[in-house]
Amino acid sequence: MTAGGAEGRLPAKRTRSGGYNRRVEIKAHEIRHRVLYAETDQMGVVYYANYLIWMEMGRVEYCRAAGVRYRDMEKEDGVLLTVAEANCRFLSPAYYDEEIAIRTWVGRAHARMVQFNYEMRNIADARLLAAGYTKHVFCDRSMKPSKLPARYRPLFGLET
Amino acid sequence: MTAGGAEGRLPAKRTRSGGYNRRVEIKAHEIRHRVLYAETDQMGVVYYANYLIWMEMGRVEYCRAAGVRYRDMEKEDGVLLTVAEANCRFLSPAYYDEEIAIRTWVGRAHARMVQFNYEMRNIADARLLAAGYTKHVFCDRSMKPSKLPARYRPLFGLET
Amino acid sequence: MTAGGAEGRLPAKRTRSGGYNRRVEIKAHEIRHRVLYAETDQMGVVYYANYLIWMEMGRVEYCRAAGVRYRDMEKEDGVLLTVAEANCRFLSPAYYDEEIAIRTWVGRAHARMVQFNYEMRNIADARLLAAGYTKHVFCDRSMKPSKLPARYRPLFGLET
Amino acid sequence: MTAGGAEGRLPAKRTRSGGYNRRVEIKAHEIRHRVLYAETDQMGVVYYANYLIWMEMGRVEYCRAAGVRYRDMEKEDGVLLTVAEANCRFLSPAYYDEEIAIRTWVGRAHARMVQFNYEMRNIADARLLAAGYTKHVFCDRSMKPSKLPARYRPLFGLET
Repeated sequence: MTAGGAEGRLPAKRTRSGGYNRRVEIKAHEIRHRVLYAETDQMGVVYYANYLIWMEMGRVEYCRAAGVRYRDMEKEDGVLLTVAEANCRFLSPAYYDEEIAIRTWVGRAHARMVQFNYEMRNIADARLLAAGYTKHVFCDRSMKPSKLPARYRPLFGLET
Repeated sequence: MTAGGAEGRLPAKRTRSGGYNRRVEIKAHEIRHRVLYAETDQMGVVYYANYLIWMEMGRVEYCRAAGVRYRDMEKEDGVLLTVAEANCRFLSPAYYDEEIAIRTWVGRAHARMVQFNYEMRNIADARLLAAGYTKHVFCDRSMKPSKLPARYRPLFGLET
Repeated sequence: MTAGGAEGRLPAKRTRSGGYNRRVEIKAHEIRHRVLYAETDQMGVVYYANYLIWMEMGRVEYCRAAGVRYRDMEKEDGVLLTVAEANCRFLSPAYYDEEIAIRTWVGRAHARMVQFNYEMRNIADARLLAAGYTKHVFCDRSMKPSKLPARYRPLFGLET
Repeated sequence: MTAGGAEGRLPAKRTRSGGYNRRVEIKAHEIRHRVLYAETDQMGVVYYANYLIWMEMGRVEYCRAAGVRYRDMEKEDGVLLTVAEANCRFLSPAYYDEEIAIRTWVGRAHARMVQFNYEMRNIADARLLAAGYTKHVFCDRSMKPSKLPARYRPLFGLET
């Protein structure tokens, strides 16, 4: 696994196959985002639904850093990551024009689903703004759940 | 033309065909919308891009009132209304939880394009909030410009 | 409690105060929403962050049906419902132009927080699209957690 | 004027004051943006209202490149740039995951208003996606139109 995360290594995933263990290293990937005026609301803070967009930004770039364009996965191989659940805890408000770090890693995965975890921090003061996860089911072009093709499994820390 | 607008008649469109005029009545259609928290920004007013979403709401309901579901037009007949231009003048701010009237009518149209006009008012005090237009090019499923099929022409005040 | 929900009664809340029980009836409130083009993504379904906006629509109208404008609560009494957590499980995709019912009720509440629960259904076929909750902390104008003023407690099924 | 634009010089602005001309150089500023899934609609292209958000991104970074944080201008000096008009012509669709260049420059300005112009291009093939402008009125904290304080005038190519 070659995910180009900027951060320390997360606990390695173990997958068991044919009687031996192969460790697949999963690292978190981090991106930066500047809070837009469009993202604030009249409370003067970022509107809560926008954190789910930040999560999207995080997981797309996680994939790219790992060598996979989500667009190609969808277009060329018809693999859709439909969202089954999203959760976010809001710990500290984010303000206009602040620079945010969005850290993304694979929480758990198997051939039919993957969970991404996220942490969002204010870069200037390292304040933790929010933490959450999204669970995804791999689907084919007709939106039917299906097994992730082998070539994409390393992306999520799975053996092929 | 049976557009179910609540408002007075707009200047009639004339279309010329085979040497005689047939007048097609076009009426404005009006819908209501309650300003969401999500739509405000930290200035305490509605963020400007949201007015373009209100315009979408207006024109979809204009079509429905005229007896055409835009979804069917797109799905069944492959007619896409791609947006070629959008314009909005912001005259007075809109605030959270205010009820807004969005009035929509066809400005001009021919077989290859249509312009919708919009006015957005605060219902409580009749304040004009914004006015604008969108210009659309009729396209087929492959996003190529194409003539509007005859059956949809009355929707836009055009002769078949 | 006079919440104007269209639906059946939810399990009553009990709150204990001074040695006797007063039952406060809580009913769900339901609103309708037509899926916008703006809300879809290229997968042809509603983008997942928009469900959190639907939840906002649901809880604001829940409050209004119960006789409280959220805007007044915020403006006049400086009571802010900051979001502490949001969760949504996506069960079936929602499509453009479908009419959706958003059902909202108070899950649990005390003087410092309230949880709203939501169910979103396709009206035409009663398909359950999504279910989730949001947890809110009552804050004052300076965004500090604070106890909900007594006059608003019945809104959330709490004794004054 | 030291705007850190990456691009060629735009036609210089002349402002006349006390009988002599001082030329203030205005340069365009360019930023990059990767199209999000959230920004697409079911037509498979970027939903039109999102271009107005891209314009916001462009003008905020234009200001920052010129040495002014819009946030500080708003917070510290109570200068609000309310939007009076927005216009966008959509020339070629933008697709998911494409990298976009947003080029921003001051079209014209005086002490009471400023117009920003924008061009949005696909970076890979230099395709012009959209072009437009926004007109802004300088307001004070109470949202009343007011003259731009002298210290901010160079930002918009104006003499102090």
